[in-house]
Amino acid sequence: MKQIQIAIVFVLTASVIFAAEGKWTPQQVLQLDPAWLKSQGLVLSPEKLWNPQRGTGLLAAAIDIGGCSSAFVSGTGLLLTNHHCLFSILQQHSTPDNDIITNGFLAGEPSEELPGQSVRATIPRHFTDVTAEILASVPKKSTDLERYRAIEKTKSELVARCEQQAAARCKVGTFDGGLQYVLIEGLEYPDVRLVYAPPRSVGEFGGEVDNWMWPRHTGDFSIARVYASADGKPAAYSPTNVPLHPEFYFPIAQGDISPGDFAMVLGYPGITYRSYIEAEMAQKRNLYFPRREEVYGEWIRIQEETTKGDAAGTIAVANTLKSLLNRFKNAQGQIAGFDRGEIVAKQHAADQEVLTWIAGHPQFAAAKQAYRELEKVERDEETTWERDFLLRQLPTGNSLDGAFAGPGLLSAATIITRVAQSREKKNEDRPPAFQDRNLPRLRDRLIREEKSYFAPADEAIMASWIRRLLARPVAEQPAAVARAFAGLDGEALARKIHSMVETSRLDEPEQRRAMFDESPARLHERRDPLLELGFALAGDLERLEDSVDRREGAISRLRPEWRRAVIAHAGTPVAPDANGTLRVSFAKIEGYAPRDAVVYEPQTTLSGMIAKHTGEEPFDVPESVRAAAASKTSGRFVDPQLGDIPVNFLATADTTGGNSGSPVLNGKGELIGINFDRVWENVANDFGYNPDIARNVSVDVRYLLWMLDKVSHAGALLKELGVQ
Amino acid sequence: MKQIQIAIVFVLTASVIFAAEGKWTPQQVLQLDPAWLKSQGLVLSPEKLWNPQRGTGLLAAAIDIGGCSSAFVSGTGLLLTNHHCLFSILQQHSTPDNDIITNGFLAGEPSEELPGQSVRATIPRHFTDVTAEILASVPKKSTDLERYRAIEKTKSELVARCEQQAAARCKVGTFDGGLQYVLIEGLEYPDVRLVYAPPRSVGEFGGEVDNWMWPRHTGDFSIARVYASADGKPAAYSPTNVPLHPEFYFPIAQGDISPGDFAMVLGYPGITYRSYIEAEMAQKRNLYFPRREEVYGEWIRIQEETTKGDAAGTIAVANTLKSLLNRFKNAQGQIAGFDRGEIVAKQHAADQEVLTWIAGHPQFAAAKQAYRELEKVERDEETTWERDFLLRQLPTGNSLDGAFAGPGLLSAATIITRVAQSREKKNEDRPPAFQDRNLPRLRDRLIREEKSYFAPADEAIMASWIRRLLARPVAEQPAAVARAFAGLDGEALARKIHSMVETSRLDEPEQRRAMFDESPARLHERRDPLLELGFALAGDLERLEDSVDRREGAISRLRPEWRRAVIAHAGTPVAPDANGTLRVSFAKIEGYAPRDAVVYEPQTTLSGMIAKHTGEEPFDVPESVRAAAASKTSGRFVDPQLGDIPVNFLATADTTGGNSGSPVLNGKGELIGINFDRVWENVANDFGYNPDIARNVSVDVRYLLWMLDKVSHAGALLKELGVQ
Repeated sequence: MKQIQIAIVFVLTASVIFAAEGKWTPQQVLQLDPAWLKSQGLVLSPEKLWNPQRGTGLLAAAIDIGGCSSAFVSGTGLLLTNHHCLFSILQQHSTPDNDIITNGFLAGEPSEELPGQSVRATIPRHFTDVTAEILASVPKKSTDLERYRAIEKTKSELVARCEQQAAARCKVGTFDGGLQYVLIEGLEYPDVRLVYAPPRSVGEFGGEVDNWMWPRHTGDFSIARVYASADGKPAAYSPTNVPLHPEFYFPIAQGDISPGDFAMVLGYPGITYRSYIEAEMAQKRNLYFPRREEVYGEWIRIQEETTKGDAAGTIAVANTLKSLLNRFKNAQGQIAGFDRGEIVAKQHAADQEVLTWIAGHPQFAAAKQAYRELEKVERDEETTWERDFLLRQLPTGNSLDGAFAGPGLLSAATIITRVAQSREKKNEDRPPAFQDRNLPRLRDRLIREEKSYFAPADEAIMASWIRRLLARPVAEQPAAVARAFAGLDGEALARKIHSMVETSRLDEPEQRRAMFDESPARLHERRDPLLELGFALAGDLERLEDSVDRREGAISRLRPEWRRAVIAHAGTPVAPDANGTLRVSFAKIEGYAPRDAVVYEPQTTLSGMIAKHTGEEPFDVPESVRAAAASKTSGRFVDPQLGDIPVNFLATADTTGGNSGSPVLNGKGELIGINFDRVWENVANDFGYNPDIARNVSVDVRYLLWMLDKVSHAGALLKELGVQ
Repeated sequence: MKQIQIAIVFVLTASVIFAAEGKWTPQQVLQLDPAWLKSQGLVLSPEKLWNPQRGTGLLAAAIDIGGCSSAFVSGTGLLLTNHHCLFSILQQHSTPDNDIITNGFLAGEPSEELPGQSVRATIPRHFTDVTAEILASVPKKSTDLERYRAIEKTKSELVARCEQQAAARCKVGTFDGGLQYVLIEGLEYPDVRLVYAPPRSVGEFGGEVDNWMWPRHTGDFSIARVYASADGKPAAYSPTNVPLHPEFYFPIAQGDISPGDFAMVLGYPGITYRSYIEAEMAQKRNLYFPRREEVYGEWIRIQEETTKGDAAGTIAVANTLKSLLNRFKNAQGQIAGFDRGEIVAKQHAADQEVLTWIAGHPQFAAAKQAYRELEKVERDEETTWERDFLLRQLPTGNSLDGAFAGPGLLSAATIITRVAQSREKKNEDRPPAFQDRNLPRLRDRLIREEKSYFAPADEAIMASWIRRLLARPVAEQPAAVARAFAGLDGEALARKIHSMVETSRLDEPEQRRAMFDESPARLHERRDPLLELGFALAGDLERLEDSVDRREGAISRLRPEWRRAVIAHAGTPVAPDANGTLRVSFAKIEGYAPRDAVVYEPQTTLSGMIAKHTGEEPFDVPESVRAAAASKTSGRFVDPQLGDIPVNFLATADTTGGNSGSPVLNGKGELIGINFDRVWENVANDFGYNPDIARNVSVDVRYLLWMLDKVSHAGALLKELGVQ
């Protein structure tokens, strides 16, 4: 197994037409024509961005912090990301007496920086093509489930071997559904501390009203610092740790930006679906997003109603509610985007074009067969889709991180019981989520969720979840749920759940942490009704995971075959779907026309933010900001063309979820902004890129600097950021 | 008394800076530099627009139809205006079986054209300066009330003398509060018939959601025809009448329009307040608009709730509800505009500047004294302002036209009783509203309102009105209301009103029409409780009218004095406030920037309208339009730059209420559009013109032509409009 460049599976044509479409892998950057990149505005040589021999480069200053991207911006370990990406640290340290969520936070000196329990920074180190190893490990004539397990087993072994290196964090990235597998090795630093966060009314300015919208005026930024042991190695939090000195970081740009300027966005986009066939697109449009809109919409109402007027409850559900609101609005936008972009119809046409092309290229005949089989896989999945959707609201083996969206105590119960059951198996025989290496993350997740628990909301959400399962045909209902709750509804269901919760000790943090380490036998002895329900659901969750695995096995056979034909038919470079690995998107700063007779310009200003001020959330500009804004038309952070402090800007970058906190760089590799959103019209770009409306939203770094300077008077921090 | 040009009271400077500000009188057009008008885009010579010797010209093709403007567009009497300006004819002829409100209307041939009971077209004929006559008629040392009455009496005499000419409709226009008085003579044609109206979902596309908004896609147009006797004279409706052949009309433009093009808007803007002093501006901001928002908001809710699910009720209140919604949204916009434009503070600064200037120009010392007296008039008015606001919701002597906004049956009762009481006086001793010449209009109004009566809504609005009066201090309450309703509220008040309405016969059209001609004695014999309340309120209404008149008398003394100083201080042309007389505004087709990072382009398209289609009101594009729109990118009405059918456009014209239906002309005097709205940001321009956001909204005439051609297949009508 040697470390190599990832092969580009297409022939690079000289006449590549620039479009911002494409989340390119670091290695692909080197395959693009350097002269063309230069003409777009890239001043650095591509080799500066990525050195394939070393498997690193400037791009490696973009750091994965688990669900978000971030960037080193100083040689002293300062990490810049979104406000919402470090929100959990604010939540962890906020109290009614010291409400740093509301007021923001600035560490007066390094000793005041706030450690985060669950934020870890992973610095990329090596990329290795492991496609041959993985495919060789699949036995001939294996079933799809066997195939899936063989691939996962090999992946696990590759990861385990990789992680034998100290503090290594490894994963195997799957590209184009299995056309390529790449072992990605990083160093995980668990000691990440909050240095600065603005007041919530700045960091979330516009709130849900402006979410996904333009014009935008959100100061969605925070600064953390990565700490290491004295010798620069990853280490758990310790007062003796010292700031990390990263090899690569992005200096803060000192110049201005203008419409038309080049910009590149780096980061860890989570997942996109552009390689889907028509049947898969249709399922998303017709089942997945409508159901997310409906179910999360109900749970949002439950959280809002049960916490009304309850300060502690409001703080507790804040994080989950934020996440639900995001998913809800996203689902609405996806549906609208699907319809506006006629995405299913276009995918139908695209698929048909390839199928027709295959008729004249018999060497790709297998791709047509693969296409038909993918369609059948899809049809089979839909038979129990509704029940499975509800089960997936519990933590499953496929979802290690993230806030609990559904019933929280029951989610904790399923994690605890399944961890206990897994421990009775050999490590390598367990599903990856329950292997030893992931147990600390599961434990972190359990602990993190303690703060989000609020009984009235949680019981009502559990009732909703059960009611929805009981509304399915009897044959589809999970036996454990039918046994415990059949025939109950309304008050009776609520009483039953309440009595289970009363008896359970899952809501006591010490008990819950203790349970995490207990055996199944010990857990059964507790006679905890929620733990018992967790045990009873384990079979359903395993069956669900098996069916998912079986499907994944089939897809790992079929999609590569189909994609091979698609790529050959295209004859031009094709960036693979996002898969949580490091990518770069080349873009321009550019506005757009959202609808008839309306043009959005790509930059907003502090004056525009003040104009939105109503004094009430989410448009409550803090007094300190309003006072400082009196001088907004002069000073070093004013944009000379706008004549104002720039706040947010639009670019044409190809982003998705996971790009939150992504650094936005100019052609010299200097940081000009922090990506934090896409526009509403562009939400469905996970399924198809439309250059007319594909716009990402970033904070202009000058707004951050102005806040640090004029509002927080953070002279030392500015100096550390190289701003004199 | 000779017919003369109206003197321009300012010195015209050669260096006049173009701004679209100014609703110029026809005579002022001739005072503007012709070379400059040409440079703006006026191709016609100003003399073509207006011939002062004849007192007419092309501008006279703009026709007053009572609250709306309109335009002759053919030599065969075709009159183009807004859909909402001819709505009463649709309402008059619409039935559940033949619902032309919903479906629209097209007369297949002239004999099918629908007569309107209350639409009259007044063609302007002569303008005569009568300032000297009027001022000479005011006795020396008269009180303000005597002054007012003397002026009104002379006005009445001038009007009466003028109207001795057959079918003449005359009025005296007051300019700059009394700096000038002009006798305006028109010919009133009462036989106006509906030729074409689009479906309501086109004519009101966007409804209240889009009202005052941009981008806009409303087909707010209708076509009528003016009929005359065989010799071309005004005549009441008769089957033997023939189409009028007007001397002037605006041919339909055959070319395209583009951003930056010259446009002029003609019409009869109702009233503006730019000559107000600070104290008057403050009253509007702090009392008038807030109370309109509050009271009309409540009445809108009442109408919506009481008619829910009742088709007949919904049709009945449609017209009044529309009017209330318009006023309500207008009030909100005025308040927002006042605050955004800091209009009161700016008027304060402007007034102070003039007062300071006066200190150095002692010949204007009387203006300073007048200013102080105007302030006192204002303070005095505010002592009973709240009660008077409520009384004004009934028809008073100052409001001859318009839908009943408040309690409808009680409004009818006050008209009937006051007409009866007035008839006992000599014609010239009555308030102008009750003089013989106006009685047919009052009768028309009564008849028109029969269709708008819906008992549950009307009783609830009357209860609201009474409850608000009873909430005033006792000394302020009208005696009749206190006597009849003191101590009643809620159900008890509702029962009392209901029993009065049950006993009353005012809701019976034949009875009501009969009452209009009866003497007070005969009316008292009816023992109708609402008529008795009407009689009892007559004293309060008279006192209110007297206090208004006294104030008007004072203002007619004071404002001219003050305005003389303001105009002298300005040293540049000043167009007088709108007063319902013919005006022209010179403008450009131009978009605007409503807020940070947003730009509105000045033209919308049929594609944009289709994109708004939801299938539900107010965004329900009729199937016939959607079918025809399939070919929207080709054909003679496509705008080549937009590549689409143009729908609405913005220009910088200085318009206000009353400009609804105003013709929008190109430099050659050809009709390019029909004005129907202002944008939300611009509503407060009645108090101050802001070139950044002063935009009027017009229908592009090509949209009308496309509808006639592709949707209504109205070939004959198109031919009549000169479109081959």
